[in-house]
Amino acid sequence: GGCGQGCVAILGAAGFLGQRVAKVLAARGLRLRLADRFPVVDPPAGAEVVTGELLDTLEDVIAPDTTAVINLAAVVSAGAEADFALGYEVNLGGLRAQLERCRHLGTQPTFVFTSSLAVFGAVSAVDDETATMPQSSYGTQKALGELLVNDYSRRGFIDGRTLRLPTVSIRPGAPNAAASGFASAILREPLAGVRTNCPVGEELEIWLASPRTATAAIVHGFDLAQAELGSWTALNTPGITVTVRQMVDALRRAGGDSSLIAWKREPAVEAIVGSWPARFQTRRANSLGFPAADDLDLLVSTHVNEHVSH
Amino acid sequence: GGCGQGCVAILGAAGFLGQRVAKVLAARGLRLRLADRFPVVDPPAGAEVVTGELLDTLEDVIAPDTTAVINLAAVVSAGAEADFALGYEVNLGGLRAQLERCRHLGTQPTFVFTSSLAVFGAVSAVDDETATMPQSSYGTQKALGELLVNDYSRRGFIDGRTLRLPTVSIRPGAPNAAASGFASAILREPLAGVRTNCPVGEELEIWLASPRTATAAIVHGFDLAQAELGSWTALNTPGITVTVRQMVDALRRAGGDSSLIAWKREPAVEAIVGSWPARFQTRRANSLGFPAADDLDLLVSTHVNEHVSH
Repeated sequence: GGCGQGCVAILGAAGFLGQRVAKVLAARGLRLRLADRFPVVDPPAGAEVVTGELLDTLEDVIAPDTTAVINLAAVVSAGAEADFALGYEVNLGGLRAQLERCRHLGTQPTFVFTSSLAVFGAVSAVDDETATMPQSSYGTQKALGELLVNDYSRRGFIDGRTLRLPTVSIRPGAPNAAASGFASAILREPLAGVRTNCPVGEELEIWLASPRTATAAIVHGFDLAQAELGSWTALNTPGITVTVRQMVDALRRAGGDSSLIAWKREPAVEAIVGSWPARFQTRRANSLGFPAADDLDLLVSTHVNEHVSH
Repeated sequence: GGCGQGCVAILGAAGFLGQRVAKVLAARGLRLRLADRFPVVDPPAGAEVVTGELLDTLEDVIAPDTTAVINLAAVVSAGAEADFALGYEVNLGGLRAQLERCRHLGTQPTFVFTSSLAVFGAVSAVDDETATMPQSSYGTQKALGELLVNDYSRRGFIDGRTLRLPTVSIRPGAPNAAASGFASAILREPLAGVRTNCPVGEELEIWLASPRTATAAIVHGFDLAQAELGSWTALNTPGITVTVRQMVDALRRAGGDSSLIAWKREPAVEAIVGSWPARFQTRRANSLGFPAADDLDLLVSTHVNEHVSH
């Protein structure tokens, strides 16, 4: 893993996790190339920024000096379900273009692919040997990516590793349209004194990671030596299983006003989120030294410290 | 499943299983379009034959009158490992082209995709919930296909079903270069009075299906109603777990001369074949009415009746 003396390309660097990963790696003094179709706001000093569509900029982003690629760019769940062709074009076609570019470079860069719990079907509990039977186009595209990254690694074209991340909460910023958006909104909005709706029941279980936990998992995945991964390169990264009620209890402990949450169930959201597994075992990640996940109180207090004005 | 009043397209119709499936469906009076890059020898009466590369002929083969597609065309295991780009071009790109063609037709044809035990990694036992962790490019491409067929089905673009077939033995004809080729050769050659080598030890277990069993599985998979498949469309089809010794014993019982088999181990073959799982549970296929697999003696005697001159 890692990048030696070369340049680390971060694809999707304008996103929330991309910005965090870039900061951590810049603090180590690594050379960074930050690529996104959107402008990267406030990039770390010295980082090169490439703005444009992936296929138009690919040869500049994954270049002969690129020793590592961190792939955080994707059409996300609701988008891939709403636009079938676009999801495959970006999430499969774009990934294949990146992998082919790496293969033709012939330099075997480290390649960190981020996957999702959406690769699993409606199973009650998940471990590192659970079959991927996705029930969405996004989950299908992530499962396709896991297989491709594994095969390109096995053939020696990349040093690949796939990290299946939990739902990330608390995401900063405005509410988004993702079915999992409430998992951030029911904490973030009341902490900012804003009303929100919880579309699911308080008994629902969710598999969560804080932004700090998810960032640490990506960076640790980047650092791993290929040999540690064995014959299969995908693994579940650490998270916590929590109920919505436990999340609201943590909100109250942090001084948030839980009466700002309305409880109007939305069957469409419940159907999607309720089909995701929430009980994960992360044995491989634990044995490979991935940092343990922040608990709920740390998850909330970190957000307050970073994003809530006092 | 099935085809209503339309035309059934068989892709890879010049192959060994394609010819058998075509005969069964022709005997039912179905309209057939037999496609292959090689000429189809002795097609059933009334069948339309299309000879040419898939991408050049796709719009004629999967046409508005096509109500079912049976996909038996692939770059096989040794080929996909020897030529990385070709394997992905045919086994992934070709499949995607077929699925996109079906999607744009808008007629939701039945789509039978044939997969392989190569989708599994080195696990001792397999059931319908075992994760696909392939250790070859061929197995990767088949696992990619399973995911695509499932998602195109879920979205209503096809009525898809994926059949994971065992190693098929006894294949008629000349020895081939596949790592599993010995599983046919050690029976076929002595039955024809020809010497052969067995590259593996006699304790090795193999997951086998006779040509008749594999053909019956494809036809039954074609006949299934989509609703019977539930939320995941791939399943393991029936086979038998046998050791090489049991195969040689069956050869002797059928009057074959087992002294025609030399026993020179080939580590490259042993490494590949020894990594395949041989113990399968086919619960879903059994409950869906797939015919039970021929046993070893029937497998041998059927071959003798069909292919050995007396």
